[in-house]
Amino acid sequence: MQNQIPDLNEIIATVKRIAPFIHRTPVLCNQTIDRISGAKIFFKCENFQKMGAFKMRGASNAVAQITDAQKSKGVTTHSSGNFAQALALAARNFGIKAFIVMPENAPDTKRQAVLDYGAQVITCASTQKAREEKVEEVIAKTGAIFIHPYNDYRVIAGQATAAKELLEDVNDLDFILAPVGGGGLISGTALATTYLSPKTKVIAAEPSNADDAYRSIKAGEILPSINPDTIADGLRTSLGDKTFPIIQKFVHQIICVEEQEIIYAMKLIWERMKIIVEPSGVVPLAVVLKNHELFSGKKIGIILSGGNLDLTKLPF
Amino acid sequence: MQNQIPDLNEIIATVKRIAPFIHRTPVLCNQTIDRISGAKIFFKCENFQKMGAFKMRGASNAVAQITDAQKSKGVTTHSSGNFAQALALAARNFGIKAFIVMPENAPDTKRQAVLDYGAQVITCASTQKAREEKVEEVIAKTGAIFIHPYNDYRVIAGQATAAKELLEDVNDLDFILAPVGGGGLISGTALATTYLSPKTKVIAAEPSNADDAYRSIKAGEILPSINPDTIADGLRTSLGDKTFPIIQKFVHQIICVEEQEIIYAMKLIWERMKIIVEPSGVVPLAVVLKNHELFSGKKIGIILSGGNLDLTKLPF
Repeated sequence: MQNQIPDLNEIIATVKRIAPFIHRTPVLCNQTIDRISGAKIFFKCENFQKMGAFKMRGASNAVAQITDAQKSKGVTTHSSGNFAQALALAARNFGIKAFIVMPENAPDTKRQAVLDYGAQVITCASTQKAREEKVEEVIAKTGAIFIHPYNDYRVIAGQATAAKELLEDVNDLDFILAPVGGGGLISGTALATTYLSPKTKVIAAEPSNADDAYRSIKAGEILPSINPDTIADGLRTSLGDKTFPIIQKFVHQIICVEEQEIIYAMKLIWERMKIIVEPSGVVPLAVVLKNHELFSGKKIGIILSGGNLDLTKLPF
Repeated sequence: MQNQIPDLNEIIATVKRIAPFIHRTPVLCNQTIDRISGAKIFFKCENFQKMGAFKMRGASNAVAQITDAQKSKGVTTHSSGNFAQALALAARNFGIKAFIVMPENAPDTKRQAVLDYGAQVITCASTQKAREEKVEEVIAKTGAIFIHPYNDYRVIAGQATAAKELLEDVNDLDFILAPVGGGGLISGTALATTYLSPKTKVIAAEPSNADDAYRSIKAGEILPSINPDTIADGLRTSLGDKTFPIIQKFVHQIICVEEQEIIYAMKLIWERMKIIVEPSGVVPLAVVLKNHELFSGKKIGIILSGGNLDLTKLPF
């Protein structure tokens, strides 16, 4: 296992390693959203990624690096949804078994997708503790290798490749924004940006109803997410001991938004861009729309992290 | 006014005429939908067109060709929604007034968009007769020039440019499918395909609940749509005396689908492609999914006609 913060060479190696398993996703713009925000926004469309989210990058990079002996036992993780699907599909791509622990409040669409990718789903209560205990059970029973959904340098290096592509496609961004849940995407985004475009400020976008990252950075220590109740279901997780220091060092600011602001941003993207982005993915746009004084007139990259959600339970 | 069926030169001239006002839209594919359908499908994404539908092509071509004297009076039309928006935006692009007659059951989102483009909206009952009478009133009052939403060779030439682009991007299609309402898009599609790829069969896709085109072709005369009640709100209109003969001569077959089949196709596109397509736009995919024996193993182009709908009134 990779045991240090990924450097530029490691991210470049990751790009090559995962290329057969992921899409290079498009970057889209929208005139109306630019007019409303007063900024020039470049949307990196990870909702069009394989299995519908950036998580495929990190999962593929982790599975690609486990040993053949480990592969024979299969892999396991806990996830509210997107990493579950990503690990299931990555495992299928390598012809190995996957045992996925999912909280009982995960969207049905995501649970079904995991099953469709041929993985075994094990349901648990929706707390961090319940997830971790259930994974321990699975490991004891199957010998499967645990792949953490974000607190793993291989996963972080994989997630970094989305920002790397965006920075190759668009020069001179003033800001790059990504949502923060457990911190895998924002850590990877911050590392790639620091290495490739050091003048670009990295902003983490977080729901106020799951503001553990905001509180943790303020406190200087990891504070867990307590009963997070946000529509952005991918962002209910807490930071890990690998993502927290990266965020401390390389992320310029964490900005929070309310539920209604997330829903407004989601409707705006759906109506104007005609693309489907899940609530977690629109949180950065909500941050930009809320903070005109900071973002007006700026050139901004936003990572639309995913597009998986239950279409029968929309907030509008 | 152009008074004959557009030939290839006219369509080429149209491409040049409307280029400043439209997007060249992307062509997307989806592995899962290919697997389910057994075909290889190329989706021409007119949902990403300016104002969200192919109608912008025909409206721009018509407005570009009216005289300066006519421009001073403005333009008018009747439309359930997308042509209304298209004419409103085309009029704004040319700095002229637009008076748009909309049936009372048009989606709110479409009505609001027309207002946002600066046009005046006049509401009428949702019958063909009521629409036509109201437009006559508007013309009498304002002197505005009537632009028919589909029964106009300039509009048909504009709509033909979508298929022309698709045929340039993808060679050797076995079939090309477009929805049929009033017949503007399918007429343009059939003309472009006949000129540019004569071996490709043109199929019109129609809701069974608004099957006037199917019945008209069978009867050999235009039979109007009687109280059409379909979720595909853009396809409730009846054929015109310009579109009917083109369809008779150049469209290979009209195939109908049921409401539940339309909804299934819509959900499949939303979930798998992460793009928003309105019910009218997915009718061709519903046709492909329903007719495996005809389409299995074939290379198929589908025009996803638009992406405008009321997100608060989804069928799933």
